[in-house]
Amino acid sequence: MAASPLPLAVSMGEPAGIGPDLLLSLYALRQETRLKPFIVFGHRQFLEARAERLGLEIEFVECFAREAADAFPEKLPVFDLGGECADLPGEPTSATADIVTTAIARGVDAVMQGLCSALVTAPINKAVLQLAGFPYPGHTEYLAALAAPGGTPPRVLMMLADRKHRVVPLTIHIPLRDVPDLIRTDLVVECVQLLAAELQQRFGIQTPKIGVSGLNPHAGEDGLMGSEDAREIAPAISILRSLGFDVTGPLPADTLFVPKNWERFDCVVAMYHDQALIPIKTIAFDRAVNITLGLPFVRTSPDHGTAFELAGTGKGSAASMLQAIRLASELGGRGA
Amino acid sequence: MAASPLPLAVSMGEPAGIGPDLLLSLYALRQETRLKPFIVFGHRQFLEARAERLGLEIEFVECFAREAADAFPEKLPVFDLGGECADLPGEPTSATADIVTTAIARGVDAVMQGLCSALVTAPINKAVLQLAGFPYPGHTEYLAALAAPGGTPPRVLMMLADRKHRVVPLTIHIPLRDVPDLIRTDLVVECVQLLAAELQQRFGIQTPKIGVSGLNPHAGEDGLMGSEDAREIAPAISILRSLGFDVTGPLPADTLFVPKNWERFDCVVAMYHDQALIPIKTIAFDRAVNITLGLPFVRTSPDHGTAFELAGTGKGSAASMLQAIRLASELGGRGA
Repeated sequence: MAASPLPLAVSMGEPAGIGPDLLLSLYALRQETRLKPFIVFGHRQFLEARAERLGLEIEFVECFAREAADAFPEKLPVFDLGGECADLPGEPTSATADIVTTAIARGVDAVMQGLCSALVTAPINKAVLQLAGFPYPGHTEYLAALAAPGGTPPRVLMMLADRKHRVVPLTIHIPLRDVPDLIRTDLVVECVQLLAAELQQRFGIQTPKIGVSGLNPHAGEDGLMGSEDAREIAPAISILRSLGFDVTGPLPADTLFVPKNWERFDCVVAMYHDQALIPIKTIAFDRAVNITLGLPFVRTSPDHGTAFELAGTGKGSAASMLQAIRLASELGGRGA
Repeated sequence: MAASPLPLAVSMGEPAGIGPDLLLSLYALRQETRLKPFIVFGHRQFLEARAERLGLEIEFVECFAREAADAFPEKLPVFDLGGECADLPGEPTSATADIVTTAIARGVDAVMQGLCSALVTAPINKAVLQLAGFPYPGHTEYLAALAAPGGTPPRVLMMLADRKHRVVPLTIHIPLRDVPDLIRTDLVVECVQLLAAELQQRFGIQTPKIGVSGLNPHAGEDGLMGSEDAREIAPAISILRSLGFDVTGPLPADTLFVPKNWERFDCVVAMYHDQALIPIKTIAFDRAVNITLGLPFVRTSPDHGTAFELAGTGKGSAASMLQAIRLASELGGRGA
């Protein structure tokens, strides 16, 4: 008897937000969207209540990850975490923080134990979790810690992608004022090496073409508008090319993200948050997926937040969540 | 006898670049594109040679601006500046710098004298002009100086626009490192006031809706990622609202430029070069127009450079130049 393919692990996300709605509505459309099997790490009773509120006729089954693929066609597999979790759309409470963070941790466990092929995370609300003492700035840092329990978290990269465009910011959630001093040759070299390895292993791209943006307007225009492009980024490109990487830069950011230019590269490395997120959201506002690179497993998530105002209403696009699930299936299925 | 409508003044731009090609190819298509009349400030012999190289059958007429509208249907009106200007595509020389800068100055004169309705400038090459002693960083600063001969140049703003999206960067050609200290409450207030006045007078928008981006990721997220959003930008928004302006901000830049959000505003104010230029070029890479606001006249230009490698080849899109000419006709026709 052939073993079933591994299901995806999906963490439920903030219960007051839109994440559970999207998972439930996609499950209801699992045939039309040809969804691969997944198991939700979360709270069964809450999910049932939310489904009823949304008018979705879904049957649920509490099970382990190893049973999820077989159950999925008929019933939505839930790994129930217990505790109290009321259906209160748009009313977040730190009382559910434990369920939210445990869902992520158990999902990671399932992937690390070889029971699930990849992890998809529904949106969380940082403020609510931090009120409850959650010490991480967000998913990415938490996942890095979970990947190395008791050890040094691996260096991770955040990739944003749609079908034709990929971008990785070199720095993320820091003040813009602090960015220029962090743009150093060694950081560019290390991140591009990690990115290239992930593009090879996860995305199956044998010799990835990588574009690197400049920091300053016009990539500094020969030093007229800032020195970091020539002093830090250009030497990194030289080192990487001498190591055999197909890397180009520093390129002026305003023309690099013109679609026909962007599409020449398997991925673009941007220098800071808005330089990366503005173009991907402008071009793919409801289809972009967030992928964490550098973990020992594949993790994707939709590129939007909890959207409290839409929770429980049935409104809000599931497009990004669907793409996150699809991409996790593809990348996780390839194996690393 | 009804007077002809005023023609546009068009400066020829860098002769080694693609600007003259675009003007000539658009003139050849003046009927199909229903082009409004314009007069080129430049070098007649050079333009004839370039037209011949491109295989365009164009008749030329040297004339004054007041004669251009009547001549335009049959012959391309040229205000000839004299001097030497060979047809050498892709081979810029500072020997033609005087012709390039004089074309702009005479074009401004024609508009200021009420002979032309607006100015359209073809791309120039800053490096070539600066070799010849041109003291301005670019068109915008030169135009500001020409607008106030011997006096204090007016504050000007650069707007990038397509049909549905407009953006104005608050700071432009400076190192990213210098941006945060320049984002001050008074600068935001003054620029939004100027922008609102221009949107009313030039664009005919009675109560313009203006969105203002944040400087830091997530507009600072309550001070977690930078202080300028709360300390400098938010107070400016309060002041502007108390003065009756319809202004919203600071808004996280990554979602502000999602098209459906951007389109809620008549114009968005961004904090720096790439924050403004990345989204407009991503969404409208060959249709965006550059408009200078704050001058006593309307000036537009295509949102691209001299493209030396394409000059004289007949390749390269004239879409942005066509939009620049159309927008100048619309805005100039409205009067200020």
